[in-house]
Amino acid sequence: MSLIQALNWRYAAKRMNGQKVPQDKINNILEATRLSPSSMGLQPYTILLVEDEELRKQIQKVANNQPQILEASHLLIFAAWDNITPAQIEEYINHTAEVRNADPATLEGFKGALLGIAQKNTQEQNFQWAARQAYIAFGTAIAAAATEQVDATPMEGFNASALDELLNLKEKGLRSVTLLPLGYRDTANDWLASQKKVRRQKDKLIVQLA
Amino acid sequence: MSLIQALNWRYAAKRMNGQKVPQDKINNILEATRLSPSSMGLQPYTILLVEDEELRKQIQKVANNQPQILEASHLLIFAAWDNITPAQIEEYINHTAEVRNADPATLEGFKGALLGIAQKNTQEQNFQWAARQAYIAFGTAIAAAATEQVDATPMEGFNASALDELLNLKEKGLRSVTLLPLGYRDTANDWLASQKKVRRQKDKLIVQLA
Repeated sequence: MSLIQALNWRYAAKRMNGQKVPQDKINNILEATRLSPSSMGLQPYTILLVEDEELRKQIQKVANNQPQILEASHLLIFAAWDNITPAQIEEYINHTAEVRNADPATLEGFKGALLGIAQKNTQEQNFQWAARQAYIAFGTAIAAAATEQVDATPMEGFNASALDELLNLKEKGLRSVTLLPLGYRDTANDWLASQKKVRRQKDKLIVQLA
Repeated sequence: MSLIQALNWRYAAKRMNGQKVPQDKINNILEATRLSPSSMGLQPYTILLVEDEELRKQIQKVANNQPQILEASHLLIFAAWDNITPAQIEEYINHTAEVRNADPATLEGFKGALLGIAQKNTQEQNFQWAARQAYIAFGTAIAAAATEQVDATPMEGFNASALDELLNLKEKGLRSVTLLPLGYRDTANDWLASQKKVRRQKDKLIVQLA
């Protein structure tokens, strides 16, 4: 199945049937997400994985009681770093040197550029930048789920500060930005399952300038 | 080639070789991007396509002279709506009714929810929200290019206000957020082509809570 076919197959399931997603499919979705690009390669976010039903019940309460959170098999929470710190940049540079078997000294210019961006920005700007990177990964995760024929419902409709408090994300330097329940559509009970996909027409969405 | 294989194959080419990308591959990348999900399905962004070399030369000047902009085959510019207006919401609702062959009256609740969000937010907040949706599409475009074995270099490093002025985007209610040159890597001249991909380790990026 091509990516286009997978994206046509998928939709934001409003109801899921509780069936478990096999671990290998979860692993594939997570691995594709891990491979997502990000600005300067920093990946300034953490992806929280929740399978436990009790915890999902608590999360559902701060997410407008959306049924998919409990009817899903797994729940992903995309949480962006609430700031970009010199320690995080240092860790990234050291990891890069290790993976590429390089002298960290050769990465000083790159490190300086990263530090420059992070220090020029306010904490809130750094968070907003991190959040945008998390959205790239979020897009990749949705596409990856579709290629695995796993339903995924992208969600912004939740109380982020309540969720951050529930999961002690502030202490971890994180702020939740999106949710992604993974599971299987409940075709019989989901009004949206039979509806045609609505997307902006090609000639409106894409404009050739020259 | 699986999505994971495609994502492992891709990287942010620093040099491209000028070879043209066949139109069917461009169309596939754009179609996958068009199918990207967005909050409430609104797709509050426009994707500008530039093939013309003269225009790309001008764009390159406000994009730190990055060579890929000219060495690419095509350039995509992701531009988010600079606000969410009642007219845009109206158009979306009417389009939805048309595609689904539904009475627009049945969509009044949905329309009210959209209007409520757009009017509660400031223009800047609406833009930031639109920009995040554009990043989902950006992530999809990058993944789609990889599955087509087309190189794509995600770029945030450009002067967005200068680009908006060059392309008269303000008049169109748009603000540029990212660039994506599409083309083919110039392996001989790209120092990054031979480097190992660096990604955060699975156990650091992904944390199972319960």
